[in-house]
Amino acid sequence: MPEPTLVRSGRIRVTPFTERLESFGVNAYSVYNHILLADSIGSNSLEDDYWHLRRHVQIWDVGCQKQLEIRGHDAQRLVQLMTPRNIEKLKVGQCAYAPIIDQHAHLLNDPVIIKKAPDHYWLSLADSDIFLWAKGLATGFGLNVEIEEPEVYPLALQGPKAEDLMAKVFGETIRPIRYFRFGMFDFEDQPFLIARSGWSKQGGFEIYLDRPELGSNLWDTMWQAGQEFKIAPGYPNEIERIEGGLLSYGNDMNFEHNPLECGMDRYCDLDDDTDYLGREALLKIRSTGVTRLIRGIHLPGAPLSKTRDEWAVQDDKQNEVGQVSSMLWSPALKTNIGICMVDKNFWPAESRVNVATPEGICPAEICDMPMNVPPA
Amino acid sequence: MPEPTLVRSGRIRVTPFTERLESFGVNAYSVYNHILLADSIGSNSLEDDYWHLRRHVQIWDVGCQKQLEIRGHDAQRLVQLMTPRNIEKLKVGQCAYAPIIDQHAHLLNDPVIIKKAPDHYWLSLADSDIFLWAKGLATGFGLNVEIEEPEVYPLALQGPKAEDLMAKVFGETIRPIRYFRFGMFDFEDQPFLIARSGWSKQGGFEIYLDRPELGSNLWDTMWQAGQEFKIAPGYPNEIERIEGGLLSYGNDMNFEHNPLECGMDRYCDLDDDTDYLGREALLKIRSTGVTRLIRGIHLPGAPLSKTRDEWAVQDDKQNEVGQVSSMLWSPALKTNIGICMVDKNFWPAESRVNVATPEGICPAEICDMPMNVPPA
Repeated sequence: MPEPTLVRSGRIRVTPFTERLESFGVNAYSVYNHILLADSIGSNSLEDDYWHLRRHVQIWDVGCQKQLEIRGHDAQRLVQLMTPRNIEKLKVGQCAYAPIIDQHAHLLNDPVIIKKAPDHYWLSLADSDIFLWAKGLATGFGLNVEIEEPEVYPLALQGPKAEDLMAKVFGETIRPIRYFRFGMFDFEDQPFLIARSGWSKQGGFEIYLDRPELGSNLWDTMWQAGQEFKIAPGYPNEIERIEGGLLSYGNDMNFEHNPLECGMDRYCDLDDDTDYLGREALLKIRSTGVTRLIRGIHLPGAPLSKTRDEWAVQDDKQNEVGQVSSMLWSPALKTNIGICMVDKNFWPAESRVNVATPEGICPAEICDMPMNVPPA
Repeated sequence: MPEPTLVRSGRIRVTPFTERLESFGVNAYSVYNHILLADSIGSNSLEDDYWHLRRHVQIWDVGCQKQLEIRGHDAQRLVQLMTPRNIEKLKVGQCAYAPIIDQHAHLLNDPVIIKKAPDHYWLSLADSDIFLWAKGLATGFGLNVEIEEPEVYPLALQGPKAEDLMAKVFGETIRPIRYFRFGMFDFEDQPFLIARSGWSKQGGFEIYLDRPELGSNLWDTMWQAGQEFKIAPGYPNEIERIEGGLLSYGNDMNFEHNPLECGMDRYCDLDDDTDYLGREALLKIRSTGVTRLIRGIHLPGAPLSKTRDEWAVQDDKQNEVGQVSSMLWSPALKTNIGICMVDKNFWPAESRVNVATPEGICPAEICDMPMNVPPA
């Protein structure tokens, strides 16, 4: 039976790049923030795309990384209320990966916070309507802020040749932009926010298109300039992101987890006077200690067939001690790799566990993330 | 080129009925509240399914109608804050269709509110994370409530034979349940909330499954008992719901609209002392008067091919005077039917307009909803 298609409707929006991307043949979509996110393009396999991403440069329509704009007198206060990461130190021109939590330290999202001006932030969101959380808080606390979901669609250029491509199009001044910093660069006489960032570990940039009518031109310009760098259309690559230890909200962690269970300790400021919802809850969790943690996992043997289910992690007596949230074959490591949430006794690297896969119970080994991958 | 498939991941969840539904062959899915919603099943066309729904009974997996549970001392206050519909009069056992708006009267969702107990509500949601809005408000206003997204998955039985089927399975005591009322009925010695409701105008019930492990049994029981009533698997039918004037949040209206523009006047209590966010904004909008309104539209001629785009509604000088948000062929009315948001001059039924379709500019006529449909 063929796989079900995704039906189109106004509820699931296209981006300014969808038409260009579809000219390459999109085989599969996901839906992310009510917006299309491609998952397979043309005749290349996921592994082909993986090697290409590690060797060349790819252009990704990540318009689904919706921006939540918070502006006004209380903007910093509201952003700080939402995240345990101290953003007081954040400077204009900086980006910061930050968990968003509620007062019980439940994880609600894990955006990149972009400080555009002292009273002007964008949150580049994972897949939940944080717009409503921010608006609810601002309304209830009576904060003086404006909250919007502006028409901004990130276009990512990812891979080792991304910098050369960006310099060719936007000029040499883009090279000094450091990781998780941004600058304003002109395209067709309009300034665009461009950050050195993106959901891969191969290096790259994200162009925050806030003039949708220029989307096709921007795509075409990058595409043409990218020919000498072997540019190809791509999308967040599941193999590369698991190797790199990039977590997916809704897959690897969700509302049921707190940031300390997700290994986000360094994004949780607990020892200064940072004032946010969930501070007391997090302090309590830290003092008790978490009992489960997100870890990498290697499962040797032949490539496993993917299923939609979580797989149980078991100890040698078949007691469930965790769950695998993502797993697939790494052609670089020549093993199945995954991400799991696992009980305390199994946190050390090389801890031996079993995984209940649809093909039987298989021995596996806990590992650190990012994983240690040989050069492409 | 084949239509893109929907890629599976933990971010997009299955329901307790997905496996059963897929045994009939799901051709297309949508994603609704981060959950699968089928849109085409087996070898039947949308029109086949339309006639079947109007003549027999269908079983729909609408597990994507997520429940937002609000409980506790301030539950009624919070629910009332969120909606302009006076819920003070709502009795335990009643359901109420209600717009959810913010302080500027922007529409955020249009759930059915279910009053389970004086301090216990479920909101059966359209496609936005109102969980976060409710939590944000409760946090900011310091309300004494518990807010959860419990594991509840509605299963709808829709069509003229739904009552006979329900009576066969749950007993004759289900027949006196009135429209938008609910009762508790036993299945496998467990009580389930069953309401006379559903997203069609053909009559029917929704069973709120809150014990996911019983999903397959419930489906099988309804399926077997339904054989004599010609039961078939179905899904919210786009033809039937447009004829019936059932609006789709995210398609026909969204955050950019207010409830008065959506014809929801009777769900907006403005003349008593109902205390909700957006009251002042709504009063102001009413005193100024809205300039656009959701209306039905008939476009005669041959069936139009569907596209994902909104189509402009134009006057006879090709000025844009509205947008068509949904349109398709009605086999009962033998014309293309749709829903549009249109400027004031064109509100009366039979107003003549033009629609800019991909197949050219076509004359059309505004009509009332629900539309006047001949018997099946």
